[in-house]
Amino acid sequence: MRFVARWCLALLLLMPVLSRADALRGTGNLGLVVERATGSVLIVDATERKSIGRVEGLGDLSHASAVFSPDQRYAYVFGRDGGLTKVDMLTSTITRRIVQAGNSIGGAISDDGALIAVSNYEPGGVKIFDARTLDPVANIPATGEGGKSSKTVGLVDLPGRRFAWALYDAGEIWIADLTHVETPAITRLTDVGKLPYDGNVTPDGRHYLAGLFGEDGVVHVDTWRAPLKAERILSGYGRGQEALPVYKMPHLEGWGAAGDKLLLPAVGHHELIAVDLRSFAEVGRTATHGQPVFAVARPDGRHVWVNFAHPFNDTIEIVDTETLKVIHRLTPGPAVLHMEFTPRGNEVWVSVRDADRIDVYDAASFAKKTEIPAQKPSGIFFTARATRIGQ
Amino acid sequence: MRFVARWCLALLLLMPVLSRADALRGTGNLGLVVERATGSVLIVDATERKSIGRVEGLGDLSHASAVFSPDQRYAYVFGRDGGLTKVDMLTSTITRRIVQAGNSIGGAISDDGALIAVSNYEPGGVKIFDARTLDPVANIPATGEGGKSSKTVGLVDLPGRRFAWALYDAGEIWIADLTHVETPAITRLTDVGKLPYDGNVTPDGRHYLAGLFGEDGVVHVDTWRAPLKAERILSGYGRGQEALPVYKMPHLEGWGAAGDKLLLPAVGHHELIAVDLRSFAEVGRTATHGQPVFAVARPDGRHVWVNFAHPFNDTIEIVDTETLKVIHRLTPGPAVLHMEFTPRGNEVWVSVRDADRIDVYDAASFAKKTEIPAQKPSGIFFTARATRIGQ
Repeated sequence: MRFVARWCLALLLLMPVLSRADALRGTGNLGLVVERATGSVLIVDATERKSIGRVEGLGDLSHASAVFSPDQRYAYVFGRDGGLTKVDMLTSTITRRIVQAGNSIGGAISDDGALIAVSNYEPGGVKIFDARTLDPVANIPATGEGGKSSKTVGLVDLPGRRFAWALYDAGEIWIADLTHVETPAITRLTDVGKLPYDGNVTPDGRHYLAGLFGEDGVVHVDTWRAPLKAERILSGYGRGQEALPVYKMPHLEGWGAAGDKLLLPAVGHHELIAVDLRSFAEVGRTATHGQPVFAVARPDGRHVWVNFAHPFNDTIEIVDTETLKVIHRLTPGPAVLHMEFTPRGNEVWVSVRDADRIDVYDAASFAKKTEIPAQKPSGIFFTARATRIGQ
Repeated sequence: MRFVARWCLALLLLMPVLSRADALRGTGNLGLVVERATGSVLIVDATERKSIGRVEGLGDLSHASAVFSPDQRYAYVFGRDGGLTKVDMLTSTITRRIVQAGNSIGGAISDDGALIAVSNYEPGGVKIFDARTLDPVANIPATGEGGKSSKTVGLVDLPGRRFAWALYDAGEIWIADLTHVETPAITRLTDVGKLPYDGNVTPDGRHYLAGLFGEDGVVHVDTWRAPLKAERILSGYGRGQEALPVYKMPHLEGWGAAGDKLLLPAVGHHELIAVDLRSFAEVGRTATHGQPVFAVARPDGRHVWVNFAHPFNDTIEIVDTETLKVIHRLTPGPAVLHMEFTPRGNEVWVSVRDADRIDVYDAASFAKKTEIPAQKPSGIFFTARATRIGQ
């Protein structure tokens, strides 16, 4: 009987391994859905169009976002409460969780997958962590030229182990080369405009744009130019019109980089602005159903899908990027918060928060393929982001 | 003792599961290296920069290429002998292998991951298979307008479950919509030029280009236009020069789509030709060390890495896509056959066939990071291709 007992013990010890063996699978078609009200995330399989796990205990997930490790196994989830959580998507467990600041607003992963950068409101600045362990490796306070400590926004990765971000209060854009993480080499562009509220980089990692909240305009930095220079574009793009109240700040994340133009949501207006990617001049506008929040390009750039701020947030419009016309309108349901395309653009996943649902649409026919239950879903993030610059 | 024996048996039965459990890992950083002489492929880990498995028995792998399932677990390897092999990258085993033709030249996977298309020389045409089972689901003979049966080349996937390919003998380009796979909807563009020898599509899946072997020029199809039309570009691009003997046909796979231009290898010349992506007119040339074979853009488009035909095939040149100047030259060793960038472009992997090595370079500093032994390596394919249109 002692032998039997030993075998039993051995088997029991092996159980965790056995249960994990069932999970042997690829990770290229996984996704993570933020469930903001419950501080949880849903792990989804984009091929099967179903959820395969839920991870709880991620804290305050309002405005949460996620990036992925190069192997597409781990998600790094940035919470509003300064929480940074590394989630194992294969086992639906938390690998590690730290609270690294009082209030934060997203992050990025370096092009080599080694560093996680987090953008903080409180106490401001950017913190850098080892992607493997989440141990802190650098702290970059955001003190503007005038000595003003600043919230940071619009944090993105750039090629060459670099990150870019904007200083909200100080009105600056910083580009940091972390090739030697102990001694970050930072280029500071000062006086770029009043209150940059968000920023993003074009899919090739070349052009960094920051939207301004304090004035009518957008700031552009061509990161291929030396020396680096911030240039104003679209100045006074709302001129001659009475500014509408802003119900929700539009996101530059997920802007529509479509062929040779960008489609940007206009702050406070029911419009998208089309910007030529060579001249960075305005080349057209699209009147929309409401104030755009996200304008997300289908991966081939042919269409841009747009959702809207309250009270028009039950609707999606689809814009043809050649004609700049709305070619289709959908009404998925109450509080459409986010849209994410599958990597090659055959489907788009839509979070309908107040219906507790993810809807999956065919991106060519606009037909709804299925619904997936989720608790108050907001952001949807597929692991294919791991392959993108400015993920 | 009977109990003990039972436990032993149970454990033995579980062993395969246990050994697989060790392999629980993400698949986003896997790659496949073709070892042409031995009919094998090496499975590599791009993060660890090492090989983690070898799969043998894939037949004739000269000119072999691979595409990946959306979950990035399976590779589909197209051999020269008509072999189509589905490889499980997690277990380094063959899931299924069929010989579907006498002589074939590459394939593609549909944007939804459901269909594998293979381009055949003998008997010509394109065959379509279920990606899960490799069961045949459609056969599309390539009979040109003149009734001539044709080899097919330049097969790529397009958005909307479509494929495009060229008919070498007949001089045609076909675009097939396989939304209903039993009844393919095919658009035939005839008389496009003499002997299209290869084709490819821009990264957004919009512009299909085919190089002509029978005359000086390239054919362009803007797949967003209706009706579809083939237009000649770069006509007579070698005019006024004595044609050099062609040592190796250059590949359009891996052309340099860099920002707003393409860099194409010129057939028979020591040159790259830069083509404007709006006008499709030539905007410059770069004199190179030899006849270019591959011109591969770094994912951010800033540089293009070029290798060459014999007798200059020990060398790589790096071209700045803004100035069109060669900014660096490397001599990795004998028979540099292929180059593959990591998804976000921080490294490039180079196969040096006759040195039985893969070299890994830092794409920013051009420093060699490591060498990985391989048996006569040729093509290198990372799973991130699964996320790309025209993978």
